[in-house]
Amino acid sequence: MAKVDLNSDLGESFGAYTLGMDEKILEVISSANIACGFHAGDPDVMRATVALALKNNVAIGAHPGLPDLIGFGRRNMAISPKEAYTMMVYQIGALAAFVKAEGGRMQHVKPHGALYNMAAADEKLAEAVAEAVYRVNPELILFGLSGSWMIKKANALGLRTAEEVFADRTYQKDGSLTPRKQPGAMITDEEASLAQVLGMVKNGTVKSLSGDSVLIKADTVCVHGDGEHALAFSRKIKERLIAEGVAVSAFA
Amino acid sequence: MAKVDLNSDLGESFGAYTLGMDEKILEVISSANIACGFHAGDPDVMRATVALALKNNVAIGAHPGLPDLIGFGRRNMAISPKEAYTMMVYQIGALAAFVKAEGGRMQHVKPHGALYNMAAADEKLAEAVAEAVYRVNPELILFGLSGSWMIKKANALGLRTAEEVFADRTYQKDGSLTPRKQPGAMITDEEASLAQVLGMVKNGTVKSLSGDSVLIKADTVCVHGDGEHALAFSRKIKERLIAEGVAVSAFA
Amino acid sequence: MAKVDLNSDLGESFGAYTLGMDEKILEVISSANIACGFHAGDPDVMRATVALALKNNVAIGAHPGLPDLIGFGRRNMAISPKEAYTMMVYQIGALAAFVKAEGGRMQHVKPHGALYNMAAADEKLAEAVAEAVYRVNPELILFGLSGSWMIKKANALGLRTAEEVFADRTYQKDGSLTPRKQPGAMITDEEASLAQVLGMVKNGTVKSLSGDSVLIKADTVCVHGDGEHALAFSRKIKERLIAEGVAVSAFA
Amino acid sequence: MAKVDLNSDLGESFGAYTLGMDEKILEVISSANIACGFHAGDPDVMRATVALALKNNVAIGAHPGLPDLIGFGRRNMAISPKEAYTMMVYQIGALAAFVKAEGGRMQHVKPHGALYNMAAADEKLAEAVAEAVYRVNPELILFGLSGSWMIKKANALGLRTAEEVFADRTYQKDGSLTPRKQPGAMITDEEASLAQVLGMVKNGTVKSLSGDSVLIKADTVCVHGDGEHALAFSRKIKERLIAEGVAVSAFA
Repeated sequence: MAKVDLNSDLGESFGAYTLGMDEKILEVISSANIACGFHAGDPDVMRATVALALKNNVAIGAHPGLPDLIGFGRRNMAISPKEAYTMMVYQIGALAAFVKAEGGRMQHVKPHGALYNMAAADEKLAEAVAEAVYRVNPELILFGLSGSWMIKKANALGLRTAEEVFADRTYQKDGSLTPRKQPGAMITDEEASLAQVLGMVKNGTVKSLSGDSVLIKADTVCVHGDGEHALAFSRKIKERLIAEGVAVSAFA
Repeated sequence: MAKVDLNSDLGESFGAYTLGMDEKILEVISSANIACGFHAGDPDVMRATVALALKNNVAIGAHPGLPDLIGFGRRNMAISPKEAYTMMVYQIGALAAFVKAEGGRMQHVKPHGALYNMAAADEKLAEAVAEAVYRVNPELILFGLSGSWMIKKANALGLRTAEEVFADRTYQKDGSLTPRKQPGAMITDEEASLAQVLGMVKNGTVKSLSGDSVLIKADTVCVHGDGEHALAFSRKIKERLIAEGVAVSAFA
Repeated sequence: MAKVDLNSDLGESFGAYTLGMDEKILEVISSANIACGFHAGDPDVMRATVALALKNNVAIGAHPGLPDLIGFGRRNMAISPKEAYTMMVYQIGALAAFVKAEGGRMQHVKPHGALYNMAAADEKLAEAVAEAVYRVNPELILFGLSGSWMIKKANALGLRTAEEVFADRTYQKDGSLTPRKQPGAMITDEEASLAQVLGMVKNGTVKSLSGDSVLIKADTVCVHGDGEHALAFSRKIKERLIAEGVAVSAFA
Repeated sequence: MAKVDLNSDLGESFGAYTLGMDEKILEVISSANIACGFHAGDPDVMRATVALALKNNVAIGAHPGLPDLIGFGRRNMAISPKEAYTMMVYQIGALAAFVKAEGGRMQHVKPHGALYNMAAADEKLAEAVAEAVYRVNPELILFGLSGSWMIKKANALGLRTAEEVFADRTYQKDGSLTPRKQPGAMITDEEASLAQVLGMVKNGTVKSLSGDSVLIKADTVCVHGDGEHALAFSRKIKERLIAEGVAVSAFA
């Protein structure tokens, strides 16, 4: 039976600031990526989010980002592989302590935003990111863009990986995402979006923007809970997957 | 045979800023308290300092502080016990990941500066601090001011503790430190300082500022390596202890 | 004709985080206190908020706070008067530049949260805060708790002041606010709240929690726009004041 | 008579961390670029450095940088022109307040590190940077890389500029600096360095790495005081300039 994981970014509140509908999206997803205080999240929020994920039986992952709270970790920074390594180790460790204190177990690590994108495309950063995960705990699963350097480098280290696909982005002939600035980068039609997800999960293929059928590995799908609309669409993805005979669950 | 631990604060550099003579003081001490990025230290510095301590066979501890880099964690902040708990868990976890990545084992936790002083004197903060250590790893040793609330609360939880004494501070009749603002708070004469250390370690007593002999437990002595003078005096303390038949070593 | 100023805290969003209903409350108030990046606000938010206040013809003030974004500047910190002075100068200057760049003029300064409360009660901090305002621009008006050290020290320097009162807090016999932790600190009945505001503004008196009539100077009333309920009550205060013949306006 | 300005970066200490020999280099330079708290510096340091510059009759400039304390503002960040504008306005304003509070006058603005380099090469960032300076105070002088976009955009706005040259870097045929990563980027021979400075200042030319004579405008030379060697060389540059009949002074 086909199966896939649904993941979402959580724990993005900070101090007096609230962001996201964490309680609601936890009912939909199987894996939660929890912010670690660099691009979002703070120690109180991390603790509460870990507890909430455990209560909902959702698998927990660290979601480390760039040290850029104002930019929400979305602005590329010219960090060295060594700096990528140490900021990953630091944040994974911080979240791991909350998971341990709450009696849980960490399943995975998914870098956030610009760190995710830079490490997907840069061989050296990818290697540093994979090594950070491996050295903190070789049993963790690294979530990365399907087919990216992150996945390749993690596999080369012997680390388990989950290849991630997106419902609302179009793909290029080489399996990469169409850059956001290019026309046609986003899929706005919900049915087209659902069809793309099903194709990726059930057949391992996606139709590229240029019309070609491209092989793609889809272990986990990224969904969102940062608004009513996003939440409703996340629910729809899950319902359709199940209706089509695909099991939604985290990794064992 | 009498024995005592010598500890010092390390890893206090940050980005382009260098502080402390870590390589030198590591030759003197048996336990290193490594800053965790809130009051000092950054991920690169943490990694390098952990590696350096391991190379010198010095036991490693986390040295979590208040989130106050400008004030170096020395300014009291009105944090709640819950906030003390989460900032402890976060920082212990971050350092633990570096220790694991470098193949070592963490021995202890010593709160820094204002967090140390506030938790020594406040029952609720002490409980939160002890619980943070316990829930992250019940085998860690909590370093705290000898006879303080931190020690009491940690022991009540079943956590191992190391009671810390100071060479350069005078004590009150009730075993507490003379507040820095009061006259006679600091011991400036080196011989008097050495005599106090020996008395605390060998006899378990200290002569209070008022002249009384007070019982005190001295498991670990805090020494400094942030200047040539401090470093030389730290070496002198160690030499005298050994000359007087006291073994200097970390905790098993 | 009686007149009073209505002020509110604005520009408290930060990066991806939105807080407050700034556009709505600007229709109610005569003076806006704009966060300066330490406890809330960021450079983009400051610029947008200054532009919005100018568009609404609302007088602009700097709202400097403690360097504690996680705690929203609400946790007391043991800062020195010198540190209070420099953090005030820094933040006032930062906001002043946006006001100048947008073609406006700054009217006032109101310290935020714990900085406001500490400077109200501590003579030395009050002096440092007043001096910071005076030395940056002696024509600025310092907003402070009615009857507090901040007001006294500012007046002693020759600085103009606006004595601030609260609609939802009860007062003590000596004119101070009932501490939040004491029973009866908050006024929950809207009519009682409106009556207190009118009494302070029109008669210069407030009935203390113990039933005594106490003299109080009410130059400006603090209102809130951080929720639908708060916003509606702020509108009600303004309407009642106008209905009772009190003009609502900023300082010339 | 030929004249030139000598500038250096100051006020880079932070909290417990000390960096640079500010008192010494102030005896050499005519213009001080003072860090504004984003990449280095804090409010206490800014106040002290402004006072020190005034005491030494050295002209004062703001030295705004990227919000990256760990990276000392040296790591490129993908900021938008709007973000460059607001971070410039904020920091210029903060320093301006200290200058005003100490009774001085600000002469110039020089962006720091990666912000300087990015704005030199990117037309849109250059425009944003120039506009920030202009809107805060159109009488300020913008210091930028000689011949760069920053200079062009500032001049187009009607802002005064000072074109900056470097003693220890080689130049390309088009007047740009040889990138640091390329061989021959740095001049290590002191005499060659001094000769380059004199040629740029007296003749307005520099010999490029490829041997061509290139026109270059040299209004100000960047010198360093962050070590004994750098300080000694800065003194040598000044002495040689004076010996060769070049006056060293700030801008009127």
